[in-house]
Amino acid sequence: MDDRNRQWILRNRPEGKPAEEDFELEESEIPEPEANEVLVRTRYLSVDPYMRGRMREGESYAESWEVGEVMQAGVVGEVEQSSHADFEEGDIVTGNLRWAEYSVALGSELSLVDPDLAPISTAVGVLGMPGRTAYFGTLDVAEPKPGDTMVVSGAAGAVGSVVGQIARLAGARVVGIAGSDRKCEWLTDDLGFDGAVNYKEENVREALDSACPDGIDAYFDNVGGEITDAVFANLNRDARVAVCGQISLYNATERPTGPRKLMTLIEKTARIEGFLVFDYVARFEEATKRLGGWVSEGEIQYEETVTEGFENVPAAFIGLFEGENIGKQVVNVE
Amino acid sequence: MDDRNRQWILRNRPEGKPAEEDFELEESEIPEPEANEVLVRTRYLSVDPYMRGRMREGESYAESWEVGEVMQAGVVGEVEQSSHADFEEGDIVTGNLRWAEYSVALGSELSLVDPDLAPISTAVGVLGMPGRTAYFGTLDVAEPKPGDTMVVSGAAGAVGSVVGQIARLAGARVVGIAGSDRKCEWLTDDLGFDGAVNYKEENVREALDSACPDGIDAYFDNVGGEITDAVFANLNRDARVAVCGQISLYNATERPTGPRKLMTLIEKTARIEGFLVFDYVARFEEATKRLGGWVSEGEIQYEETVTEGFENVPAAFIGLFEGENIGKQVVNVE
Repeated sequence: MDDRNRQWILRNRPEGKPAEEDFELEESEIPEPEANEVLVRTRYLSVDPYMRGRMREGESYAESWEVGEVMQAGVVGEVEQSSHADFEEGDIVTGNLRWAEYSVALGSELSLVDPDLAPISTAVGVLGMPGRTAYFGTLDVAEPKPGDTMVVSGAAGAVGSVVGQIARLAGARVVGIAGSDRKCEWLTDDLGFDGAVNYKEENVREALDSACPDGIDAYFDNVGGEITDAVFANLNRDARVAVCGQISLYNATERPTGPRKLMTLIEKTARIEGFLVFDYVARFEEATKRLGGWVSEGEIQYEETVTEGFENVPAAFIGLFEGENIGKQVVNVE
Repeated sequence: MDDRNRQWILRNRPEGKPAEEDFELEESEIPEPEANEVLVRTRYLSVDPYMRGRMREGESYAESWEVGEVMQAGVVGEVEQSSHADFEEGDIVTGNLRWAEYSVALGSELSLVDPDLAPISTAVGVLGMPGRTAYFGTLDVAEPKPGDTMVVSGAAGAVGSVVGQIARLAGARVVGIAGSDRKCEWLTDDLGFDGAVNYKEENVREALDSACPDGIDAYFDNVGGEITDAVFANLNRDARVAVCGQISLYNATERPTGPRKLMTLIEKTARIEGFLVFDYVARFEEATKRLGGWVSEGEIQYEETVTEGFENVPAAFIGLFEGENIGKQVVNVE
């Protein structure tokens, strides 16, 4: 155990797309756990699109991070020192910690991870926040029914790839929208999606027309913007739209505009609903249990894009906005 | 009983706002009822904003009317001749008939109106389609709860004025948006709204800020466009938006654009839902009964703007887009 800690600070609020210069690597001492606290050495660090919102000034659904502050992240790590009765050295834990090699947290902010159940990195992936987001957004908001056609955007990402598989398990025909042929092939060949649209190569509206001959009954939106406009053109009566993310708009420097959609909602008697996974905290155990079951039975496949090295956390984060990841983007900090 | 019938034909599909030249007054013979049909003499004819959508080419939630066809309308009239066992001469009936002095309809398309219950014109107003639209859109879609703040746009119209009063009965604080001081005073002084905003005179966003100090929990949208944008700026977590109409956009000649709203839906975990009253047909009796009870108990007030004379039907219809009506716009055809 080295005696120096490294952590990433928000140096500037990004203008548009985040750049490496917006982050600063800072060295500090490894903190000491006080009563009920635990010192965690980061092994996997999660970078997620929602973090872009927290780098922005002003109100969002999550608190805004201050310039000069250490960035926060979902982390899977190993207990190095514990002053909390529930944790001991060597335990694998997960929690919302920091872009840091070492973090101190209250025991109440951590959960134990069973390393025999699945690779520990899945605690920030398919069995963690992204998996739970997919679970509740699909089953509770988009509500695919047998025979429905469900579309998911950002389909090859950490959330979207799980959404499509849950919708398939619910009996729906599933079409994913993703940004490369390789991603589309992964969706259809490995994950069992019924169709996939490469939005960088195809006219999305036309491609959806032919991939969804019976229209679209449910849509899980991770990206927003013109892709979502194309989906709206194909909605069926009584369609449900679960709004999870709008990654195509996160780096906008002006308030994004687009076609007004409320008339379509009347014509289609459709529902659009935004949701936050944190609102389902009382049911996290249910989600983790069912997701774990599906993963161990092979019903749900997952992929991880692993960036090596703590120094590359900002690059991994920035890559999310270029669609560099397939499945969950994590950083291996060992 | 004159032996000539007069009816209004759709002469052209309007470009933008409908004009008198888009309609043509045609004389014809009074039709004869065949088996199971009834000849109805129009007494009150309803003009409604949704008709604008049916004058447009192509798909809407209702079938498009053809050029050269007689326009359709909700009518309250008197049975002149009946070949249907359930109706006899002199009965007051209502149904979706035509912009005509006389219409023939199947008995199954008509409902009896009790002239002792309320003025018969209410069968196309507070006790008819607009009242039922307000009823289901408020109670089933916007779902105001005690203590909520609910906003309604187009608040002084046939639907909006009833929406606000139902929301008040449900225990919500109600703020209406309307287009004149006279309308706003009617809402607050006569109908018991807690606040009203004159969108033609006030900055709607600021006026809502001060009229809704606790934010907006539910919104019933009749108008869309910039007024709805202003409401969105004030939505609370878990807000519900019932989308009933978009009158500010009906005459648009290009596809309307505006600020994208899906990010707000995530931040506020809000739900927007379009609805059509026709989907609630199985519960129409429930709605009419409760609305009738509220009206007779004085819990719900209503107003009608009555235009005199069959020749003025197009003018009354066009007036809807200039906000000329308070409450329900009808034409008295006696």
